[in-house]
Amino acid sequence: MQPITTYSLYFEKEIGDYSFPISPENLYQPLDYFLQLGGKRIRPLLTLMAAEMFGSPKENAIHASLAVELFHNFSLIHDDIMDKAPLRRGKQTVHLKWNDDIAILSGDVLLIKAYQALAKQEPRHIPALLDMFNRTAVEVCEGQQMDMDFESRKQVNIDEYIEMIRLKTSVLLGCALVFGAIVADASEKDRTLIYTFGQNLGIAFQIQDDILDLYGDPEKFGKQIGGDIISNKKTLLLLKALELSQNNSESNVLEMLLIEDHVLKIETAKSMFDTLGVLTYAREQMNFYQDMALSALKEISVSPEMKKTLVELSEYLFQREV
Amino acid sequence: MQPITTYSLYFEKEIGDYSFPISPENLYQPLDYFLQLGGKRIRPLLTLMAAEMFGSPKENAIHASLAVELFHNFSLIHDDIMDKAPLRRGKQTVHLKWNDDIAILSGDVLLIKAYQALAKQEPRHIPALLDMFNRTAVEVCEGQQMDMDFESRKQVNIDEYIEMIRLKTSVLLGCALVFGAIVADASEKDRTLIYTFGQNLGIAFQIQDDILDLYGDPEKFGKQIGGDIISNKKTLLLLKALELSQNNSESNVLEMLLIEDHVLKIETAKSMFDTLGVLTYAREQMNFYQDMALSALKEISVSPEMKKTLVELSEYLFQREV
Repeated sequence: MQPITTYSLYFEKEIGDYSFPISPENLYQPLDYFLQLGGKRIRPLLTLMAAEMFGSPKENAIHASLAVELFHNFSLIHDDIMDKAPLRRGKQTVHLKWNDDIAILSGDVLLIKAYQALAKQEPRHIPALLDMFNRTAVEVCEGQQMDMDFESRKQVNIDEYIEMIRLKTSVLLGCALVFGAIVADASEKDRTLIYTFGQNLGIAFQIQDDILDLYGDPEKFGKQIGGDIISNKKTLLLLKALELSQNNSESNVLEMLLIEDHVLKIETAKSMFDTLGVLTYAREQMNFYQDMALSALKEISVSPEMKKTLVELSEYLFQREV
Repeated sequence: MQPITTYSLYFEKEIGDYSFPISPENLYQPLDYFLQLGGKRIRPLLTLMAAEMFGSPKENAIHASLAVELFHNFSLIHDDIMDKAPLRRGKQTVHLKWNDDIAILSGDVLLIKAYQALAKQEPRHIPALLDMFNRTAVEVCEGQQMDMDFESRKQVNIDEYIEMIRLKTSVLLGCALVFGAIVADASEKDRTLIYTFGQNLGIAFQIQDDILDLYGDPEKFGKQIGGDIISNKKTLLLLKALELSQNNSESNVLEMLLIEDHVLKIETAKSMFDTLGVLTYAREQMNFYQDMALSALKEISVSPEMKKTLVELSEYLFQREV
């Protein structure tokens, strides 16, 4: 296997060469714009790395990796409409720069383009790739629906929350890795293990994101600190705090949620979460899923040498200041 | 081949048995609702009929036919949002009965479910089915974008209009038929011919729809007569009228478009279109595409006996009072 940057440079070149038709302009220009916004491209790198780990050159998995990235961008474009998000990666979202109709239809065609990229893989792999992709894509939509449902629900328990982030974000990491495994003709057992690795990595990563949102270094986090708590978003931290405070009459988490001053609200939340042990709990959960991920990786029937880049990538993902 | 009703009853039973998961409710209930609204189910019947025409039992093409119907319903749910349509088949549209976000996400998952149905066909057929489906699905989105673009454009020529209806509605008829042909292992040549049949049938059918909107029998048409002209929709009739009136200073079509009284506007449009020969022109165009469709069907290398149901179906489609 090669260092992360090799995969990264290769993928950036390939997605840079990927082009949409010129017309209808209102359908394809938003997609050119959105794909150029970049992002970490973690998912397609997972596909390429998994392919090489299982013994196939990364070039053999390029269309599958593009499919994953196109799908991810489709889901962002549509999620941004639903979330009424003004910005994505610091730039205007498609529905704001154009309009909702264009964001709906451009998103639709991007989803289809993802399938079209997948269909360029070798025909003998297509049925397996398609099954994995369909199942994952359905789950991502289910996760997004659960996320929206949670906003208006009074009570959400932690199992439901984990299930939501598993569907909304983690299964796609598993799928990305399985794509590489399918292309490299890995065994069923290894496909299951690499999927477990990706899924648990994804859950751990999302929990880290919940932690960083409140406790991250503003310089390194790249987003506004405290955004989740300001909007009373039901993250793992808040849900655990609510659960614990039911039995602790002195720390009223519900009252904290009503504070209007942002700075005061963030400080109050932090001190409340510290008292309740919520930060420690979240870190333990994160480590739990990380460990599950790494032990699945360990079981895969290739040499540790071949697993190095994936281990490095997971370390890179959890390097951010907590 | 069997009579139309055999296919129709078979498909209604199959789609009746098709079910979505129960949860998340807000994702799947709108789809249960929408699919139960019914419709003519022309597209899936085309798949089943084509399969049998080329020598495969209709049962072998059931998943492909479901894929076509699910895709068609996906496109209707999203189009209804963009068109701000309150009603579909006489009932509330999804975005109105629920909301835009739910209509977007339910539509997304329905598109994926269409791919999932397709993936249930025999693995050896999947690459060809997937290619056809991807190409068609992209084109349908392009057609919808062109249709939206036309609304705000001052000038649209007739070639552009035909291209728009070809993409937005006709290619899916071609695709539906090719699905049947692929499942029955028809030759490349026959696949091209059946596609040509479907595509031209679709264009002719859409032109008939334009004609019926103004000249149809209200009892038989099932929609409000004159809806297109009331909303100044750029149909083949209006575009031809605008083209012809450029050289005819006496009939000012542009002035007619400003009439506010609906009854007066419809009457004025009709008399203007008669004077300009627009109705005759549209009928000629419809016949032209119908003839192209039927001559492609004639060339297909199966006995005329085997083509009977498809001929009957096209006759049924053009039976409506013009």
